Amino acid sequence: MASKLHSYAGKILRIDLTHKTATKVDTPYELARDFVGARGFGAKILWDELKPGADPLGPENKMVLSFSPLTGTSAQSFHKIYAMFKSPLTGGYFRSTGGGFFAAEVKFAGYDAIVIEGRAEKPTYVWIYDNTVELRDASHVWGSTVDATVEMLKEETDRDARMLTIGPAGERLVRIACLVTDDYRTPGRGGGGAVLGSKNLKAVVVRGTKRPELFNPEFFNELVKEQVEVYKKSPLFEAFHSLGTNSIVYQFYTLGHHPTYNFKNTELENVEVWRPEVLEKYVVKHVGCFGCMIKCGKRWKLTKGPYAGLIHDFPEYESHWSFGSTTGVTNLEAIAYANMLADKYGVDTISAGATIAFAMELYEKGIITEKETDGLRLRWGDGDVMVELIRKIALREGIGNVLAEGTVRAAEVIGRGAEKFAMHSKRLELPAYDPRAAKAHGLSYATSNIGGSHMIGWNKYEILGMPERVDPLAVEGKGLLNKKVQDQIAAFEAAGWCAFAELVQTAGYESVEKTMEWLGKILYAATGVEEFKDSNYLWLVGERVYNLERAFNVREGFTRKEDWLPERIQKVPFPRTPAKGQVFELDKLLDDYYTVRGWDVKTGIPTRKRLEDLGLSYVADELQEAGKLA
Amino acid sequence: MASKLHSYAGKILRIDLTHKTATKVDTPYELARDFVGARGFGAKILWDELKPGADPLGPENKMVLSFSPLTGTSAQSFHKIYAMFKSPLTGGYFRSTGGGFFAAEVKFAGYDAIVIEGRAEKPTYVWIYDNTVELRDASHVWGSTVDATVEMLKEETDRDARMLTIGPAGERLVRIACLVTDDYRTPGRGGGGAVLGSKNLKAVVVRGTKRPELFNPEFFNELVKEQVEVYKKSPLFEAFHSLGTNSIVYQFYTLGHHPTYNFKNTELENVEVWRPEVLEKYVVKHVGCFGCMIKCGKRWKLTKGPYAGLIHDFPEYESHWSFGSTTGVTNLEAIAYANMLADKYGVDTISAGATIAFAMELYEKGIITEKETDGLRLRWGDGDVMVELIRKIALREGIGNVLAEGTVRAAEVIGRGAEKFAMHSKRLELPAYDPRAAKAHGLSYATSNIGGSHMIGWNKYEILGMPERVDPLAVEGKGLLNKKVQDQIAAFEAAGWCAFAELVQTAGYESVEKTMEWLGKILYAATGVEEFKDSNYLWLVGERVYNLERAFNVREGFTRKEDWLPERIQKVPFPRTPAKGQVFELDKLLDDYYTVRGWDVKTGIPTRKRLEDLGLSYVADELQEAGKLA
Repeated sequence: MASKLHSYAGKILRIDLTHKTATKVDTPYELARDFVGARGFGAKILWDELKPGADPLGPENKMVLSFSPLTGTSAQSFHKIYAMFKSPLTGGYFRSTGGGFFAAEVKFAGYDAIVIEGRAEKPTYVWIYDNTVELRDASHVWGSTVDATVEMLKEETDRDARMLTIGPAGERLVRIACLVTDDYRTPGRGGGGAVLGSKNLKAVVVRGTKRPELFNPEFFNELVKEQVEVYKKSPLFEAFHSLGTNSIVYQFYTLGHHPTYNFKNTELENVEVWRPEVLEKYVVKHVGCFGCMIKCGKRWKLTKGPYAGLIHDFPEYESHWSFGSTTGVTNLEAIAYANMLADKYGVDTISAGATIAFAMELYEKGIITEKETDGLRLRWGDGDVMVELIRKIALREGIGNVLAEGTVRAAEVIGRGAEKFAMHSKRLELPAYDPRAAKAHGLSYATSNIGGSHMIGWNKYEILGMPERVDPLAVEGKGLLNKKVQDQIAAFEAAGWCAFAELVQTAGYESVEKTMEWLGKILYAATGVEEFKDSNYLWLVGERVYNLERAFNVREGFTRKEDWLPERIQKVPFPRTPAKGQVFELDKLLDDYYTVRGWDVKTGIPTRKRLEDLGLSYVADELQEAGKLA
Repeated sequence: MASKLHSYAGKILRIDLTHKTATKVDTPYELARDFVGARGFGAKILWDELKPGADPLGPENKMVLSFSPLTGTSAQSFHKIYAMFKSPLTGGYFRSTGGGFFAAEVKFAGYDAIVIEGRAEKPTYVWIYDNTVELRDASHVWGSTVDATVEMLKEETDRDARMLTIGPAGERLVRIACLVTDDYRTPGRGGGGAVLGSKNLKAVVVRGTKRPELFNPEFFNELVKEQVEVYKKSPLFEAFHSLGTNSIVYQFYTLGHHPTYNFKNTELENVEVWRPEVLEKYVVKHVGCFGCMIKCGKRWKLTKGPYAGLIHDFPEYESHWSFGSTTGVTNLEAIAYANMLADKYGVDTISAGATIAFAMELYEKGIITEKETDGLRLRWGDGDVMVELIRKIALREGIGNVLAEGTVRAAEVIGRGAEKFAMHSKRLELPAYDPRAAKAHGLSYATSNIGGSHMIGWNKYEILGMPERVDPLAVEGKGLLNKKVQDQIAAFEAAGWCAFAELVQTAGYESVEKTMEWLGKILYAATGVEEFKDSNYLWLVGERVYNLERAFNVREGFTRKEDWLPERIQKVPFPRTPAKGQVFELDKLLDDYYTVRGWDVKTGIPTRKRLEDLGLSYVADELQEAGKLA
């Protein structure tokens, strides 16, 4: 018997593009209780509904956009979009996340999740105004960049509407195409743009006028007040607020885990321009997502060089790296311009830069020449060439058509040993931390259900020494540490939280446990779901979500062999201090990790026992039936 | 004793950037009666207030933005911006006009005109909300393109605000820089962007909540109803509505007065792409200005080639020519992209394209080589090079720094006989009609107070055979015809009307006289100014405005010698049918024109008698005192 779910919008909207229907069902109480929301909802819905072997670019794939009971409330920073789908890049489960105002607006329109399925006959966009849902012709904006699409669709819906859209890259099924919001807070990774593109869906546009109803508003407000106080006293608040993730680029370079030149990791020429005092000169405006006082977004203005005139969101830490350190480009104007182009054409900044760096290394090694590159000289550090390649990737033009497939598939096309230089895990390009210099963090790259992602197991203990310092180079205990971080992140992402914000709050409390206790309380105050009160339950939800995602991939045929990192990471000693000489001890770390996960060590597959402990016996049953249980 | 001025906003706003003041004075009754508004106000205010010899880029120059009693009413198409200033390109009087929603918004805020003077110490923008006027810091948007500026300034003022702004080109004092509205309806010509740039003024942002009060609403509404009926039955309505000025590009090419290759006028290769059926495929949206049912603006989408992704206002007939026929570029994608870049960087599309065509001819003739062009090969028809040159002009980069000065000054820098290829009159680049193929129209190029403009004397008799056909190649009677057209345009521009709209209405009536009668009636119905009732009075106002503008230039030292057209136009026979063999008989046409104008034939200076007949005896007095009267 379902109790009333306070603070949830109460409905899940299902859009079937093939049959041109929009249906609404009540958000099931059990779904809410067991998976909280956001990433949790996505994992469960994809497990339930996606047939194994489904073509990621076929009508059978689904895109779940889901939100949390805290989305759209006054709780700080819980207003992110979580987008879950089967990835055309990795072939497995994917969760991608972005910010802005879209999530809160969907909640205001009355939905905890939107499930998009099927395939429209012709270019379409969805216009949601509260209870009204229309599928509209998008032929006129098909092919257009994000800025043009946003302008056109706002004009014909509502000037205050919010939207999630794709650029030309998504339409062209570029496997590293992203989803983009009207304010460029992109759910970037995993090829979500290509999934919408394959469905002929240009955008989801939404306007909502409802507001969440809280279970215990007084208690809730107290907890928000506490949160604001903790944010303010947090040592990370000012750094995020003043310069966003740009504040750490130079620091992380000096800490030695920041990769350069496609993970060759020689010293980066001209790295001094990464210093905060250089970067901050470009900032003209601080911008934030809905309901977040951190305002980590910085708008940059370019006034010099061929790219002068631009004002756009600055490249985040990872994009700074992908368009900077790993391509060797230290021309800040070119980096910012590349970032803007990627946003407007709808390409994942991380994978785009990483793929360009991969191509630059192939060019350096003579594996590709100007014959294959449409005459471009792909030299390290050439920002203009990088800018040109982004456009080519997005439009699948010449060499761009090869690189649009991501490093692994591009390497297959190119041959001649190119695959050795594809720096990826599960075909997702590795981001801006070298696994050799941060072992638990690297272990998460290897074991992440979505491939080489920095978000799934961003190891604050190793990277920031926070809430307590852990030696990043040590191997001992890293299985447990990685599990803990992965589960915590899965838990707070099921609550729709922002990873930056969680960092700020945890730094304020100097304790992860306190953060989770607070999270349990506020989820309870919002929803009235008794289970949420106990933070141990949230840890369990995190582990449940993580295992369910894993099971999704197992059902697709993933085993231990997919938990992999490139030869360079495993065998080539890291050249820079302080990680000099380090390699990544993959097998040892995996054994440890699987053991603490309670998974079969040989295959990396969750055991029945573990799944049952997590309330996932139906998952064990299905895997067993498919002969895929350990 | 001033009667109440109905339908006028009632105030003139004066912004002194040097002293950081904003003052409001009542709109003088005599000014309204004698000059109606818009272009008329600008001519009078500049005559009264600008000292001869004032530096166009000095604080002593003024920018008058003025509107009409019909602006912001339900009368169709009277909602244009008229911007008057001393031009940094021509050194003389200038009037530039654009559309959009800015003019109506200023009227709603309560102003018939805004006079901008002085020079701000640092980058500034003006924020007007009804009676409240603020001068605000614009450092954060200084250097930014128009799209970024619009986004930033709307965010910090009002999402529904309207604005007139400049791009990087205006800031860099590019002499062909334009003013741009938030919706890209640019007052393009004459370097208005550089005037604001020289004043450190990035934008005028406005939001208004008032509405004009009509003298006789019933009569007024009847006249608007009549106007709508005439529009609808007009043979030009559908052409303007369906494809805007793009509908005539191919037609005008075939009529033979459409210049090619910097007025060399050989047949244009690949001209078939100018056909309406090709162009209309690019249109994704019809857009219009405030209060205009014609909606002549077309948004184009590009889906092919390196510029794919763009949606932007299509290139108008003139821009189509400047980025197309005169540069020989028939790559429509490059033309549309060039047009967008010019809008976003804030460069006049006509002068930019014409200056690039000039450079291409210099390159063809070997007068400039790759040494002077930063390695670019300026070959006719190369759209990619054209696109690159626009950016360079706007940013004053390399060869762009030379071309940013316009053809005449660029020719002075380049030397080696380059001036022969500068196709201009009074240093304003000639637009998309060849004077040899339309003599009265060409005579207006030569005699226009703002230099080689198509708008000042757009000769519908010659170009469209409308309202009656006149042989465009004939010389006889063209002085009178040109005078009539110039005066009529000055009259309806004093009323703030749009030239396209006047064409539609006149085609509907099949009579210019009927149009002017209707205009007199509606001005009277709106304002209650008795004089306006009589259309003869409006013709007089037109001539008054025209003579006052002329007097402004005379005061600056202009005489008959400035009423000039290039040697190529005067001496080289036109090569294409039907104007084959024609040259432009400048002296003969000038003699005729001055005679019918009642000006001194030798000097082209208005006589005292003529000025007195027009109520401009104070002008005659001042010119006489300066020793400049004929």
